[in-house]
Amino acid sequence: MKSRPKPIDSLNSPRFAGVSTFYRLPVVDDPAGLDVAIFGVPFDGGQSYRVGSRFAPNEIRKVSGGIKPYHPSFQLSPYDHLAIADVGDSPVNPLDPAVSREWIEGFVDRIVTAGATPVAVGGDHSITLPILRALAKKHGPLAMIQLDAHLDTADSYFGTRFGGGTPFRRAVEEGILEPKDLYQIAIRGPVYESTEFDFVNERGIHCMTMDQVAENGMDWVLEQLEPLRDKPLYFTLDIDGIDPAFAPGTTAPVAGGITSLETIRLLRNLRGFNNLVGFDVVEVQPAYDIGSVTSMLASLLMFEFLSVFTASRMR
Amino acid sequence: MKSRPKPIDSLNSPRFAGVSTFYRLPVVDDPAGLDVAIFGVPFDGGQSYRVGSRFAPNEIRKVSGGIKPYHPSFQLSPYDHLAIADVGDSPVNPLDPAVSREWIEGFVDRIVTAGATPVAVGGDHSITLPILRALAKKHGPLAMIQLDAHLDTADSYFGTRFGGGTPFRRAVEEGILEPKDLYQIAIRGPVYESTEFDFVNERGIHCMTMDQVAENGMDWVLEQLEPLRDKPLYFTLDIDGIDPAFAPGTTAPVAGGITSLETIRLLRNLRGFNNLVGFDVVEVQPAYDIGSVTSMLASLLMFEFLSVFTASRMR
Amino acid sequence: MKSRPKPIDSLNSPRFAGVSTFYRLPVVDDPAGLDVAIFGVPFDGGQSYRVGSRFAPNEIRKVSGGIKPYHPSFQLSPYDHLAIADVGDSPVNPLDPAVSREWIEGFVDRIVTAGATPVAVGGDHSITLPILRALAKKHGPLAMIQLDAHLDTADSYFGTRFGGGTPFRRAVEEGILEPKDLYQIAIRGPVYESTEFDFVNERGIHCMTMDQVAENGMDWVLEQLEPLRDKPLYFTLDIDGIDPAFAPGTTAPVAGGITSLETIRLLRNLRGFNNLVGFDVVEVQPAYDIGSVTSMLASLLMFEFLSVFTASRMR
Amino acid sequence: MKSRPKPIDSLNSPRFAGVSTFYRLPVVDDPAGLDVAIFGVPFDGGQSYRVGSRFAPNEIRKVSGGIKPYHPSFQLSPYDHLAIADVGDSPVNPLDPAVSREWIEGFVDRIVTAGATPVAVGGDHSITLPILRALAKKHGPLAMIQLDAHLDTADSYFGTRFGGGTPFRRAVEEGILEPKDLYQIAIRGPVYESTEFDFVNERGIHCMTMDQVAENGMDWVLEQLEPLRDKPLYFTLDIDGIDPAFAPGTTAPVAGGITSLETIRLLRNLRGFNNLVGFDVVEVQPAYDIGSVTSMLASLLMFEFLSVFTASRMR
Amino acid sequence: MKSRPKPIDSLNSPRFAGVSTFYRLPVVDDPAGLDVAIFGVPFDGGQSYRVGSRFAPNEIRKVSGGIKPYHPSFQLSPYDHLAIADVGDSPVNPLDPAVSREWIEGFVDRIVTAGATPVAVGGDHSITLPILRALAKKHGPLAMIQLDAHLDTADSYFGTRFGGGTPFRRAVEEGILEPKDLYQIAIRGPVYESTEFDFVNERGIHCMTMDQVAENGMDWVLEQLEPLRDKPLYFTLDIDGIDPAFAPGTTAPVAGGITSLETIRLLRNLRGFNNLVGFDVVEVQPAYDIGSVTSMLASLLMFEFLSVFTASRMR
Amino acid sequence: MKSRPKPIDSLNSPRFAGVSTFYRLPVVDDPAGLDVAIFGVPFDGGQSYRVGSRFAPNEIRKVSGGIKPYHPSFQLSPYDHLAIADVGDSPVNPLDPAVSREWIEGFVDRIVTAGATPVAVGGDHSITLPILRALAKKHGPLAMIQLDAHLDTADSYFGTRFGGGTPFRRAVEEGILEPKDLYQIAIRGPVYESTEFDFVNERGIHCMTMDQVAENGMDWVLEQLEPLRDKPLYFTLDIDGIDPAFAPGTTAPVAGGITSLETIRLLRNLRGFNNLVGFDVVEVQPAYDIGSVTSMLASLLMFEFLSVFTASRMR
Repeated sequence: MKSRPKPIDSLNSPRFAGVSTFYRLPVVDDPAGLDVAIFGVPFDGGQSYRVGSRFAPNEIRKVSGGIKPYHPSFQLSPYDHLAIADVGDSPVNPLDPAVSREWIEGFVDRIVTAGATPVAVGGDHSITLPILRALAKKHGPLAMIQLDAHLDTADSYFGTRFGGGTPFRRAVEEGILEPKDLYQIAIRGPVYESTEFDFVNERGIHCMTMDQVAENGMDWVLEQLEPLRDKPLYFTLDIDGIDPAFAPGTTAPVAGGITSLETIRLLRNLRGFNNLVGFDVVEVQPAYDIGSVTSMLASLLMFEFLSVFTASRMR
Repeated sequence: MKSRPKPIDSLNSPRFAGVSTFYRLPVVDDPAGLDVAIFGVPFDGGQSYRVGSRFAPNEIRKVSGGIKPYHPSFQLSPYDHLAIADVGDSPVNPLDPAVSREWIEGFVDRIVTAGATPVAVGGDHSITLPILRALAKKHGPLAMIQLDAHLDTADSYFGTRFGGGTPFRRAVEEGILEPKDLYQIAIRGPVYESTEFDFVNERGIHCMTMDQVAENGMDWVLEQLEPLRDKPLYFTLDIDGIDPAFAPGTTAPVAGGITSLETIRLLRNLRGFNNLVGFDVVEVQPAYDIGSVTSMLASLLMFEFLSVFTASRMR
Repeated sequence: MKSRPKPIDSLNSPRFAGVSTFYRLPVVDDPAGLDVAIFGVPFDGGQSYRVGSRFAPNEIRKVSGGIKPYHPSFQLSPYDHLAIADVGDSPVNPLDPAVSREWIEGFVDRIVTAGATPVAVGGDHSITLPILRALAKKHGPLAMIQLDAHLDTADSYFGTRFGGGTPFRRAVEEGILEPKDLYQIAIRGPVYESTEFDFVNERGIHCMTMDQVAENGMDWVLEQLEPLRDKPLYFTLDIDGIDPAFAPGTTAPVAGGITSLETIRLLRNLRGFNNLVGFDVVEVQPAYDIGSVTSMLASLLMFEFLSVFTASRMR
Repeated sequence: MKSRPKPIDSLNSPRFAGVSTFYRLPVVDDPAGLDVAIFGVPFDGGQSYRVGSRFAPNEIRKVSGGIKPYHPSFQLSPYDHLAIADVGDSPVNPLDPAVSREWIEGFVDRIVTAGATPVAVGGDHSITLPILRALAKKHGPLAMIQLDAHLDTADSYFGTRFGGGTPFRRAVEEGILEPKDLYQIAIRGPVYESTEFDFVNERGIHCMTMDQVAENGMDWVLEQLEPLRDKPLYFTLDIDGIDPAFAPGTTAPVAGGITSLETIRLLRNLRGFNNLVGFDVVEVQPAYDIGSVTSMLASLLMFEFLSVFTASRMR
Repeated sequence: MKSRPKPIDSLNSPRFAGVSTFYRLPVVDDPAGLDVAIFGVPFDGGQSYRVGSRFAPNEIRKVSGGIKPYHPSFQLSPYDHLAIADVGDSPVNPLDPAVSREWIEGFVDRIVTAGATPVAVGGDHSITLPILRALAKKHGPLAMIQLDAHLDTADSYFGTRFGGGTPFRRAVEEGILEPKDLYQIAIRGPVYESTEFDFVNERGIHCMTMDQVAENGMDWVLEQLEPLRDKPLYFTLDIDGIDPAFAPGTTAPVAGGITSLETIRLLRNLRGFNNLVGFDVVEVQPAYDIGSVTSMLASLLMFEFLSVFTASRMR
Repeated sequence: MKSRPKPIDSLNSPRFAGVSTFYRLPVVDDPAGLDVAIFGVPFDGGQSYRVGSRFAPNEIRKVSGGIKPYHPSFQLSPYDHLAIADVGDSPVNPLDPAVSREWIEGFVDRIVTAGATPVAVGGDHSITLPILRALAKKHGPLAMIQLDAHLDTADSYFGTRFGGGTPFRRAVEEGILEPKDLYQIAIRGPVYESTEFDFVNERGIHCMTMDQVAENGMDWVLEQLEPLRDKPLYFTLDIDGIDPAFAPGTTAPVAGGITSLETIRLLRNLRGFNNLVGFDVVEVQPAYDIGSVTSMLASLLMFEFLSVFTASRMR
């Protein structure tokens, strides 16, 4: 059994030194023995607008060196209680989305089979589908919290049924995502047509639009999520769910999102959710960022997940 | 009579493809038959600090391709109910502000005469004066909502009575703007001298400083605007009214403004205002922006106006 | 027959005003009657490294407004002698490279059939293959000058035979490009393996590496091209053939290329080449550029082609 | 006695003209006769992560020309009531932190001895220690408000006891800062270890974490500060106390801070604090900023301090 | 008589410290006693395309601190032999070009009358006209070397006879510039019409196009300038004469210019020109620059002028 | 004995995927068995102007993934003939230059003792001194080629004898660098005082200024280096030796340097130099770069060294 890896100590080696890995953790090839396996999925071939989120995993690795190991609110360091490591990047084929999805699913299969919880960094939102497929093999139909400006439940774009705008319709259709356990937060902005919400409504997906979030407040949002406490729960964090003021470096910014403080609160609220099965952060675009603040936010939010996951495990 | 133009469908043609026009609408030379005429006014010769808002109309055209056509809150697409098109840019003379004002007025005259409502993209704030002049010929003295960090009611700058800091004093003096129907929102920051508010106070302009907005809240702001419901109302949106966190790409950023969510609410509140006669967004500076978030915000807010205008028309 | 469109006069309307089209020419839907049809091909799905050249056509449209109409060296304005217009962008499917290639070929078919010469702005280098296919239907196997840092004659990348690194092997295999009439200029930088030049050598492609260009000089390069004078000649200009000092905004910069002055000379040397059948400039990346200098260079080089094409036609 | 210097009038000379000084005030070599001496401390040798705050004083000088002289909320111009000038930059030795601290202390000694109140622009947070040393010679142990994401009370970094992360432990140990009168605001983010708060707790420092600020609100924060009303009070404003959405250009951004509006309120609340002895703003990083918004915010907050300081003096 | 001011010593005070002045020289209000008066002319209201060169004087002041005082090729420090100082910026009115021209002329009058040689930093190229006017009062019709991509001898733009594209036609017409003594270098790029060179040809202006420079080489250029050796010679350096690879931050970049090395050689060749009466560098655009390399180049070239001017004076 | 590591194959795994190491080589902790050990030295505490080269090693790791393994001119892949790996970064203490020098020397000692040749990425130029110290223990006094805009032979800066401007005076004084075997190339730009070249001249250092390089050409430069063929030769490449057009992202750019093509030629000329003992590239500044072109150039030049080193070994 693998011991608990520790990050390189930034009090002795400055955080900009050495090969960049997630949180300065060691890179391991084999997920066996890990509680959490962090990895990149540098694929953005599902994007029909801005591209470049393929560069996000390594940018986030770079700035994650600045995230210190101890969470003062939860009063714990995830690395003291769980075996967590960087397992590298999923293989992807930048010229072939279908092959990429297979490879991603296979990569996550190996993590899940080894008993580790996957924590992924996209890439575009199309990468979540193969992750869900791998997880559903173990856990059955999943519950999911989706922070996002966009529904991502379209049927197809440009005649293609698999892309950044369609993953969750596919997941529901494939029976790997339980629509009644899908909670969408911060959905906003103009859409293509009036029927776009039909799928959401017909399947009973809990879509909390930003209009509703703004009117009812974050307390209301958190209450809605209560039914998910004991379900096998995946959290997918499209960085564009957060307002572009806080996360400018993203694929398709939509003004009027939630704040980073509210996002932190949303993640910390997962304490006591007993069956967290995975997490991803997607759609970070380093080429459109300023001073890496978006990548830094992403790396902080991942650490919040690692911490609340640890806290929930320790109950 | 012109039929209702439709934007190019971004589900078939990606939003970055083709010549960029406002919302991917067709460009028409003649405003006849249009309900709304969108145009640029690429003039920034009224600026005494940063320049470059001359590049905003085309940057906003470019990113406006990402604004989808259906407004889920109002449950309508403006393009289904109204004839809306891009009518190109007003002629301007970059070396001659006085000539430019004449040309802008003439350009808007033609729109107004054709029965269309002007929606303009600046340029600096000096462009609003000739637009108001054209509109007042039809509607008489106008009411106006001005979201802005600055009063823009100075008497002169550098001996010049026409510039980015003086348009609304001129408009009041010329009798085309009714001062008692002018509501300024989010005014803030240091000023040149104690007498700067004298004109505002003497004329009975309703100046809601950011201090007041912060203390009393957005509900209070919206209440103040109620008397304008049936007046011929123009909305001028200086992007610097919004906090630089949300709109960094602007001429003269002043920290401490309202959020983009509050701005969206302010625009949606116009539902039921029965006589909206025009709209502009000014002082966007692409060269100082990051990832085009400011231009994207501007294009979203214009779409919010198009939508609330449509909703109000449909009552 | 179409008359000769003229650019908007930048002495009356400033070059930043109005909807951006190539060289401020009108946009026409139908290429009939045109001598030259300029268009964008905003497709970058063939790229295995940096992406974003999909945004190049509109960035180049924007800055091409600064290119004045008269060429003082050739003492002519192309627009006085030929009918040239912007015919918009080829349709592309950002999620499906194969479909995109078909659509591009169809789009160029229409131009070629109408008797116009295609001048394209990519996109990545994979877009040249469908253009060559369309042209070869009319002209038979083509001659080609390729300014490029990379051979682009690989057999496959990631198991995919169609991408940014393979177009010219495919074109040779398909018999639409005559390898003995293919002249590559400025090839340089490390390669994957020693066999990479095998295809080039076996087929008799004239590969002038940068080592050779630097040693023998530009005069030698121009001499080599003499046999192409009367052949149906296509010119493909990968902007990375030029040194990154002059063209930083590109997909895969390789230090040590030719200068922009040498590139201008190379294009002007086409005077007297009697059968120029098409031109493209590819791999411009606006997101990695500074002050648009790369896009400006691209728009200047396209104008050099338009001018030398006109001069050659007028002989 | 020195008369009251006035800023250059931006209504006659545009704000971008002339040599840049703080608020366009004259530069004086001798602080004698001044009420407030503004200066830069371009030293960032205490930083173990991003460097470059050495360039902040001159960037802030540049944009401070946009801050007009009259504060409409306090209804006063500081320059009408107090003698305020730019006294240049403290000498620093970029290659020797220890020497730099001595030089900074000496430079502030001279200001304090002359009876002027120091207002400093860093540089990194290590510059505050020598300023406190100089002030304590006159005022005895100081009270302090510290807006900051980080505690800055570590014992050492890399074996060095003096750096950007340790100044306030040193100040407490040296008896120049009264720990019970130290109020920290907006502290947040992961830390190195669980013991990091020990020093704060043992010495009775009032640490208001961002968790507490978010939960209890700004009113609560302001109440906590009441005991400081009559104490010799220094205000140190690490720009990273503010959320990176509002202040992206900083050394070590931590998401989830207070807003710029809340910061303005915090500063204005100092009205009636009768013994304000100094102020600094630190950790601004121009190289990571966008459109200078962070430097502009810093220059606005300094002006808020000048104004509230004047208002308090005038009571 | 004024003594010879010395720059602040960057071996004792780092070059980023202190208020930024040209070459860290003192700022003096009165040019009396100076041999050379360096000043900014932050006016860009003559520009019909990109604006922002108004920010160049202070950016160049900032980076000029990095230019050390001793010229190793000439083996002298200008400051040891001549009295040189920063005399601040000329007054300008950003909203009124005509008034600005008057103010600039008056400002330079004062310098010339005091016996000092003006060295100016623009601003756009329209600022050179009033400088020439002031100089011609003393020296009579001037000779001039103009490094530039553009002729700047148009008759009018947009109906305005005074702007960035017309100064030298005006100067010739006014008799203050002797056309036969005007040597233009590196002129290139497309023009508006075939008649654009008519004025140049009719008046006998020596226009050395970039085509000629590239063909004949720099030696040939230098030979052409020989007749100017004893004439009252002004040097106007439009930074766009240099290739955008070396000077990307400019108003209207045109690819294919001379290198910075060639420019240095051009300036050093002035040694032995006995009547150098003034110098300017114009059209630097900090907002479009990268890492300030263009401003750094401008500050180096100004220093080259100061040095060759000193060397020529010492003959 | 260690086998020859191979880079990850970018034909199967895209070059942006996976943890970034130099040339996608494995990271090894122990240099035993290696022929070449590549490492970063992220220390910039010796800089008295711009800082940030501490971030260069990881930026160069990132973009070095784009450098393919086979050198077509030398017709070899270094990885086929030599054992080359990334050995991580040298330990450094960002707050203590003296300790950092010791740590760097110790780190290189271990490499040299293991029989590997060090190839380093700075950091500022002060890092070369401890590397030379380690190498001289084995090889005795070294010969060196220094490509640089600056002499770096000052005696002290700010009273400090160890910094970015002094390493080679120290090395000569310590007897680890043989001054008669030190060849400096491309030295240029103003200096502090006339005596600055005294040390160079007294010790017989071969300083080839840029004036000389430009006048005599690169052939002459290469001839000068002939005496070094059999000496233990270190090559230190300060990226600012190259013109800022090609390498804008550097600490202290000086216009007028050599081109990247000339630099490649300089490195290739080392073929047949039989005792190459080490190499470094220093002063790359990612924060001032555009599109990473400077880091890409640095990674290409390092590969050129690896290749010529291999070729020389194979003789």
